[in-house]
Amino acid sequence: MSAYEELLTRLKDIDLIRQIGSLLSWDQEVLMPPKAAPLRAEQLAWISKTAHERLTDARIGEILDEIESNDDMDEITSANIRLAREAFDRATKLPTEFVEEMAKHRSRALISWTEAREKDDFSIFRDDLEIAIGHARMKADFFGYDGLRYDALLDLYESGLTVERLDPLFSGLRENVAPLIKEVVERGEGPDLSWVTESTWSQKAQEELSQSVSEAIGFDFEAGRRDLSTHPFCGGPNPDDVRWTTRYSEEDPFGSLFGSMHETGHGTYEQGRPRDLDFQPAGKANGLGIHESQSRLWENQIGRSREFCEWSIPLWRKFFPENMDGVSAEQLWQAVNLVKPGLIRVDADEATYNLHIMIRYEIEKQLIAGEIDVDDLPDAWDEMYNEYLGIRAPNRTLGVLQDIHWSMGAIGYFPTYTLGNLYAAQLLESARNDLPEHDTQIREGDFFPLLKWMRDNVHSRGSVLEPAELIKEATGQDPSPDAFIRYLGSKVERLYGVSA
Amino acid sequence: MSAYEELLTRLKDIDLIRQIGSLLSWDQEVLMPPKAAPLRAEQLAWISKTAHERLTDARIGEILDEIESNDDMDEITSANIRLAREAFDRATKLPTEFVEEMAKHRSRALISWTEAREKDDFSIFRDDLEIAIGHARMKADFFGYDGLRYDALLDLYESGLTVERLDPLFSGLRENVAPLIKEVVERGEGPDLSWVTESTWSQKAQEELSQSVSEAIGFDFEAGRRDLSTHPFCGGPNPDDVRWTTRYSEEDPFGSLFGSMHETGHGTYEQGRPRDLDFQPAGKANGLGIHESQSRLWENQIGRSREFCEWSIPLWRKFFPENMDGVSAEQLWQAVNLVKPGLIRVDADEATYNLHIMIRYEIEKQLIAGEIDVDDLPDAWDEMYNEYLGIRAPNRTLGVLQDIHWSMGAIGYFPTYTLGNLYAAQLLESARNDLPEHDTQIREGDFFPLLKWMRDNVHSRGSVLEPAELIKEATGQDPSPDAFIRYLGSKVERLYGVSA
Repeated sequence: MSAYEELLTRLKDIDLIRQIGSLLSWDQEVLMPPKAAPLRAEQLAWISKTAHERLTDARIGEILDEIESNDDMDEITSANIRLAREAFDRATKLPTEFVEEMAKHRSRALISWTEAREKDDFSIFRDDLEIAIGHARMKADFFGYDGLRYDALLDLYESGLTVERLDPLFSGLRENVAPLIKEVVERGEGPDLSWVTESTWSQKAQEELSQSVSEAIGFDFEAGRRDLSTHPFCGGPNPDDVRWTTRYSEEDPFGSLFGSMHETGHGTYEQGRPRDLDFQPAGKANGLGIHESQSRLWENQIGRSREFCEWSIPLWRKFFPENMDGVSAEQLWQAVNLVKPGLIRVDADEATYNLHIMIRYEIEKQLIAGEIDVDDLPDAWDEMYNEYLGIRAPNRTLGVLQDIHWSMGAIGYFPTYTLGNLYAAQLLESARNDLPEHDTQIREGDFFPLLKWMRDNVHSRGSVLEPAELIKEATGQDPSPDAFIRYLGSKVERLYGVSA
Repeated sequence: MSAYEELLTRLKDIDLIRQIGSLLSWDQEVLMPPKAAPLRAEQLAWISKTAHERLTDARIGEILDEIESNDDMDEITSANIRLAREAFDRATKLPTEFVEEMAKHRSRALISWTEAREKDDFSIFRDDLEIAIGHARMKADFFGYDGLRYDALLDLYESGLTVERLDPLFSGLRENVAPLIKEVVERGEGPDLSWVTESTWSQKAQEELSQSVSEAIGFDFEAGRRDLSTHPFCGGPNPDDVRWTTRYSEEDPFGSLFGSMHETGHGTYEQGRPRDLDFQPAGKANGLGIHESQSRLWENQIGRSREFCEWSIPLWRKFFPENMDGVSAEQLWQAVNLVKPGLIRVDADEATYNLHIMIRYEIEKQLIAGEIDVDDLPDAWDEMYNEYLGIRAPNRTLGVLQDIHWSMGAIGYFPTYTLGNLYAAQLLESARNDLPEHDTQIREGDFFPLLKWMRDNVHSRGSVLEPAELIKEATGQDPSPDAFIRYLGSKVERLYGVSA
C-alpha cells in the first residue's frame, strides 16, 4: 500500500465514524425520546473522541509530510491532500487544554446567552461574550494567518476566505441594496396579505405541498427522508441517506414551503456528490457558502420567482382549495416577495437579509481587531440597524442578543450566508446562459435542466476546488455581488416599480 | 486504576459502541431509505469490527487471568468477571477465518433458503443446511463442552443450558400438553369468530389501542418509542431509549395488540435494568429465555387472561365502536384463546406453541449428534408434526422450510422460546403468591403491582445470576414445566371444559 493509499484508508475510517455520528445527531434532533439525552451525549462524545484520535494520529502527519511535496499530482489527489492537511492542522494546532476550555466555555455561554435573552439583559451574557471573543482571537493565533487575524476565522467556514475578498462583496451590496430598500420603504405600499394572514393552513396539506415540491425539484426520496423538527436542518450520513426536516405553522404556509425548498437545495447537493470519491475529502460538498448557494437557489431565486408561482398555483389550489379560492399567481408572487425591513435576521426577506449579515460582519471584524469594546456593542448594533435598515430594536433581545452563533464561538460564520446568496445569483445567471428555455421550464415545472446544470457544474465537483475557484470555474467569474444586485434590482422593479 | 477498574473502563467503551450499533440497526429496520442499505452495511461492519477488536484486545485476557482467581469478590464483581470471560472466550475461541467462512455461508444460505421456500423445493437449501450443521458442530468444538456437543450451542443463547436440563422440561410438556390438545381437537367445537373475521379493523384504532395498553402496563414513552416495522422487534441503545415496533393487519386486530404487549414486555424489562450497573455486563438483561418470559407474560398470561379481557373491553369499544357492538368480554376472551393445532410456529396458540419448539429441539439434537441425516429431515419433520400435533404439512414450505433460524446458523436458539413460556408461568405463579389481589388488579387495569414484582425480582437483578439461578431466586424453584402445565390445564378447562 502506498502512503497515499494508506492515507485514503485512514480517511475512510474517519469518514465512516462521522457518518455514524451524523445519524446519531439526526435521531437526537428528530425522534429520540427525551430521557435518552444524557446517554446520547455519551455516544456522541465517544464518536467525537474516536474520530479526533484517528485524525490526529501522528502517522497522518508523517504521510502528509511525505507526499505533499510531490509535484505531479492529479487534481483529485492534490485536493485530497490539501483537504487532509487542512483537517489535520485544524485538529492538531489547538492544544487539547484550549479545546477543552473552549468546549466548557461554550456550555456556559449558551446558558448565559439564553438567560440574557429571556431577561432582556445583555449584562448577563457580557462576560461570556468577551471570553468567546478572546478565545476566537487565540484560536486565530494558533491557526496562523497572513493578513488579518479575522481571516483565520473566516477560513474555518469557507476555505480561502479573507476580509480582502469579502469587503468588496459587502460594499457592493451596501451601495446598491440599501438605497433600493429605502425606495421601497418610502413608497409605502405593500400587497394585500389578508388571504394569507386571515386563514388557517392545515399542517397535513402543507406537508403534502412540501413533499410534492421537493419531489418535483428532484430530491430522491429513495435516498433520503423528510421529517419534522423544531430546528429545520439537512443532515444524514451520506448521499444515499440524506435527511432534511422542516416545521409547520398553521398561521403561515410559506415557512414550511420555503424551508422545505431550502433544505431540498442542501439535500440535492448532498445527493449529487461525486460517488467515485466516496469517503474521500475531495468528494465532500464544498464549503458553507457553496452549500448555502444551493439552498438559497431553490428557496429564493426559483421558489420566489414569478414562473415558479405560476407552476405551483395549481398545487396550492389542490392542497388548499378553500384558502386559495380566487387567489392568483400574481397575488401569490407578491405575497412571497414582501420587502420589509425588520429586526430579526431569520425572518428577513431576500432584499434585506444580506444587510443583517453585513452588520454582523462589520461588528465581528471590529471585535476581533479590538476596535470596538464589548460594552459598546449593544448600542453599536442598534446604530447600524438604524443606519442600514432604518429601524432600531426596542430591546436587547430583538437586538444584539438575537443570534445563538457567538455563544457557540462561531465567529466568522455569518458571512457564509451572504456568500450563499451571491453565489446562487451568480450560478443561476450562468445557468440561464446555458438554458435559454429556463423561464419556460420553471413555469412548466421542468426543474431537471437546472438541477442537472448544478449537478454538472457544482455538485459533481465536490471539494476538488476551493470555493472561490469553483465559482470561477462554473461561472467564468470570480465571486462578485453583481449578479445578485442585478437579480434583486430587476425583481424589485417588477414588484414595486422602483429602482435605486 | 485497579485491573478491575480498567476492565470496566474497557467494557464501557465496548458497550457504547454496541449502543451506537443498535441505533443504526433500529434505524435500518424502521425508517432508513432503501438506497442507504449498502453504506449502512459498511457502518455496521465498522461497528462490529471495532467492538470485536476492543473485546479481543489481549489486555482483557490478561486482566481476566489476573483477577478471576480472586476469592473474595462480591456478587456484582463476580458476575462482571464471569460475563466478561464468557464474552472474551466467545470472541477469541473461534479462528478469524472460521468466523469469516461462517458469515459468508450465512449470506449464501439465506439466499438458498429463501429460494427453496419460494419454489417449495428443499433440495435447493439442502447443501447449505448441511454446511450450517457442520459449522455448528465445529463451533461447538471450538467452544468446548462437558456433556453433549449440542450443549455448547444451547449455552450460546442461554448461559448454562444443557440437554440434561432441557429434556425433563420438554418431556413434562409432551406428557401433559399433547393429550390436552388432543382432547380439545376431539371435542371439535370452537367459538364463533365471525365478529373478528368479517370486519375491517382500522389501523389507526389498532395503533391507539396498542399505545393505550402499553402505557397502562407501564412502558415509559419518555424513555422509548413505538414504531411500525415489517418484522416486530424491541431494540434501542439503552434503558433510556428502548424502541419497540409492531405491524398491523386490518383483517386481524389481535396480531398488533398481542405483538405490542409482547414487545412491551421486552421493553419494560430493558427499562427496568439496574441503572447503577450501566455499561457493566452484570447490568444487562439476562439470557434470551428470561427476556422471552417478560414478553410472554404480558402477551399471553396477562393479555389473554379473562381479567385482562374484562379490563380492556371498554378500550376495544372506545377504539372500535362499530366492530365491538354487542361483543362481550367472554367472547373476546374465547377469541384470543382459540386452541387449534396448525403447521406454522409463529401463528401457533399458547397451548400448541411449545410442541412446535419441541419438534425443532428434538431435530436439532439429532442433527448435531449425527443421528439423523439432512436428506431424511423433511420427512422426519412431517412425521413429528403428525405425531405431536396430528397434522401433516402439504409441502416443504409449510414444513421444514418455514423458519429462518437454521439458514442464519442459529442452532440452539429455539428452546429459549419455550423457556420463556415456562419461566413466565413460574414467575407469575410466584408473583400471585405475593399479590393476593392480582386478579382484581388486572381486572381494574392496575398493572403496577405485577410490573413492580418483576422489577424487584427479575429486572433489577440484571445478569447478576445465571438464568436458572435467577428463576430459583425469584420463585424458590428450579426451572420446571409444572407451573405452565397447571396454568394451561386450568385455562383449557375453563375454555373448553376438557382436561387431560
